[in-house]
Formats: sequence, C-alpha cells, structure tokens
Amino acid sequence: MIKVIIIGSGNVAQHLINAFQNEEKRENGIELIQVFSRKKESLISLLPLDKITNQFSELLTADLYLIAVSDDAIEEVSNALPFKNRLVAHTSGSAPMTVLNSSNRRAVFYPLQTFTKNKAVDFKTIPICLEAENDADFELISKVGKLISDQATAINSEQRKALHVAAVFVNNFTNHIYQIGNDICNEHQVPFAILKPLIQETAQKILELTPEKAQTGPAKRNDQKTIEAQEQFITDENQLNIYKILTQSIQNNGKKL
Amino acid sequence: MIKVIIIGSGNVAQHLINAFQNEEKRENGIELIQVFSRKKESLISLLPLDKITNQFSELLTADLYLIAVSDDAIEEVSNALPFKNRLVAHTSGSAPMTVLNSSNRRAVFYPLQTFTKNKAVDFKTIPICLEAENDADFELISKVGKLISDQATAINSEQRKALHVAAVFVNNFTNHIYQIGNDICNEHQVPFAILKPLIQETAQKILELTPEKAQTGPAKRNDQKTIEAQEQFITDENQLNIYKILTQSIQNNGKKL
Repeated sequence: MIKVIIIGSGNVAQHLINAFQNEEKRENGIELIQVFSRKKESLISLLPLDKITNQFSELLTADLYLIAVSDDAIEEVSNALPFKNRLVAHTSGSAPMTVLNSSNRRAVFYPLQTFTKNKAVDFKTIPICLEAENDADFELISKVGKLISDQATAINSEQRKALHVAAVFVNNFTNHIYQIGNDICNEHQVPFAILKPLIQETAQKILELTPEKAQTGPAKRNDQKTIEAQEQFITDENQLNIYKILTQSIQNNGKKL
Repeated sequence: MIKVIIIGSGNVAQHLINAFQNEEKRENGIELIQVFSRKKESLISLLPLDKITNQFSELLTADLYLIAVSDDAIEEVSNALPFKNRLVAHTSGSAPMTVLNSSNRRAVFYPLQTFTKNKAVDFKTIPICLEAENDADFELISKVGKLISDQATAINSEQRKALHVAAVFVNNFTNHIYQIGNDICNEHQVPFAILKPLIQETAQKILELTPEKAQTGPAKRNDQKTIEAQEQFITDENQLNIYKILTQSIQNNGKKL
C-alpha cells in the first residue's frame, strides 16, 4: 500500500479525499492515512476524526504528502513541514515545482479539472499532470495517479503553465461567455434554458472535430450584415466590446488559413 | 397528416429532412411530401428522386413550406414562390418574420442548434422557436414542432434576435475560445485532448448551476499574481488582448454583485 497524506481541506483536497477513499476499497492501492486541516470540522463529513490533524507536528510518516491548498499558501505550508527528504507534491496548475521547499523531494500532482463544492466528479476521467525531481518519485506519483485516473501524464512545469493558461480560456472564460449569454437572455425575457442544448452540443462537437473545423457563425461566414445588426442590438458596452474583439479574432483566424 | 415541403438543401434543411422522415414512421404525424433544391443530386442520399424538385413551378400543395436557406436568400426565395395565402415559415435565428413576402401567411420555425454536416443530432432535444402571424398558423407550426422536438416555444422576433446574439456568444465565441486553448497547447507541445474533460465539465456544470455560481479562476478570485504571470506567459498579441478583456469583464462582474 502507498501511504498518502493530504494537506488542505478545500475543493481539490475534498475531491482527492473522495477519490482516494474510493480507491482504498481495492487491494494493493492507496491508503489515505491522514489529512491535515486547520479547521478539523470542515472534513468530519468525509473522514473519521482520528484521521484529521490540525498540527504539523502530528503528521505521520507517509510515502507521499499532497499539498492541496491555494497557490499563495503552498510555499508557506511546504516550509512548515517538520521533516526532510520525504516526497512532497503540490496540486496546482500554475505554481512551479520549485515553489516547494527543497529540503524535501519535490513533485507536482495536478488534476486538471474544475472542482465545485458538493458536485461529484468522476475522477477516472480527470487527466492528472505529473512532474517529479527524480525517476523513482515520478514512478510513485504515476502509480498513484493511475490508480485514481485513466489518464496520468508527464507534464513539465513549462507545459503545465501552458495548460493552465489554456484551461483559463476553455473553462473560466467559456463560463463567463455563458454568463453574457444568460445576461442577454434575461434582458430580453427569454429563458436561458433554451440555450443549454446548444451549449452541450458545442462542447460535444470538440470531441469529434478540431475547433477550427467546428467553427460556424456570422464571423466565420463573414456575414457582415448579421454582424452589424447584432452589434446594433447589443446595448451593453462591455458585451459589445467582447463581441467585436471575438468576431475580429475569428475573422483574422480565417485569413491565416 | 400535416403535409410539409422543405425548400433548401444545406445543413439545416438536411437535418430537418431526417427529423421529419423519422417522424413519418409514427401515425398522425407529418408527411414530408417534397423538397426543393437547386441541385437535386445534393439530396439523393436522403430522399427518393421523385420527391425532389428544382423548379418552383413544380411545388406541390402543402400545409407548411419551410424555407431553410441562408439568411440572405430567404427574401428572394419567398418572392419566387408561385402561390398565395399559404403558410410559409423561415428557419433563421436572425431574420425577422417580415422578410418573407406578405402574399403568403408568414411564420418562423427556428431550431436553435448548431448543425454540422454528417454529424447526427437528436432533434428531440433541440428547442424550436416559433412565431406566426395568426393563431391558427401558430397552432399548426406548434404541432409540427412538438412532433419532432420536446421543446417548442413561442418566441417573438425581438426575443429571437436576443437568442441569436446569445447563441453567437455561447456557441461561436465559445468554440473560438476552444481554438485559442488549442493554439496555446500546440505552441507548447501539450496535447489539447488533456483539456477535453474540463471542457465537458464546464458545459455540464451549467445544467445545474447559474453561470455566476459556476464561475471560478484567477479573475474571479482576484488572484493578481497568477493573472500577471499568465499575461507574461502569453506571446500572441491577440490572445493577450482577449485574456485581458475577459479577465476585466469577470472582475467587473464581481463588483456589480
């Protein structure tokens, strides 16, 4: 059994706790032996109380310590660990591996997904991006990654930065675009729900087609008449600005081909 | 049986042909009696040749004529129809009902979905937005809509304009955002496929949460350190511009709350 300790109690930590506990039911897998949380009570629905500690000095000996805290807190937490030369990984998409204190063996274990409180996710479908300072440690985190996910891949710090920026686009920005769609519907008393099948199909298409092949709409067709009519229709300055910039970007893209 | 004729042979026309032909297998439904296409050969894989015409003068008598052609061609096609006082609907999201020649009874039958050639869609899940000049005609297109879809809704021309603008955001702009994600991955030799589960989850979330509740990421958290690092990481001027504007838009949105 690989003994794992999770440090943190936020969304990522809680989803990892669930994933590891599901895995424990199988043999030869992972044993989640302890979780560190400043506020013990935030985890009592997930774990028996004796598995939770709020003291760094009480941390047990484990094969892998996973720091699942906010980016800003990773360094501080890694400095606070009261041991040396153990395997410590953070779970962040944007922090470099080197943010971790070098007195321990460093690694990254980054599950690339958007985690929402109280919304279950199937960890098996989540790509886990792995990096480690040495081969033996990479083997270990790779084994852990493969036990909870179907897709565990070596990704170096530079690639992970790129992935995280791309993830901000396809997740955070896409969701904001949904919100603009929602705002436009509200303004004109149309139920946003009417757009939900279109949103699903847009996401589904990308599983079969490249985004370039999947691109449709007035900007792609250079349908200037519709573009101008829509620009006149939009009353909000910010929405109009985004409409113009994304329309332009689609049109310029076409020219590059 | 309600007799329907489709005019057009593009993506929307072909998906409607399939939807109506599936419906014909049930009783008391729709009979697709004819399709008009300038190029007969473009439809021979879908229909028997004797159901296809390329002459307006050969159009049969039907309860409903559905014009599924590009927005620019709707007016010309509706002017070319060699009959009066029959029910004629276009299938466009952006054209007003009044673009149709007033010598026939006018309506709109707009399936709100993105149609891709050779990619089947389940028409049952597609919202159909309906408008007609008089109640009896509305009843008829509503019956047709409900036979092929689970969601057929009255939407006036102003609401349809809003929906179409919102659809450009959530479909065309979202897909373009996917493409930027793809471009960033390519630039840094990371497989775009790693982002696909995230894209699916982002779309799925919207089925349960409002876009506002679903919003996450550095902009939402006002994580200025990550935002600045990502702005420095992005090398393409256009990508950087879009990053800044959408980040700003998310941050301003937060202030409104």
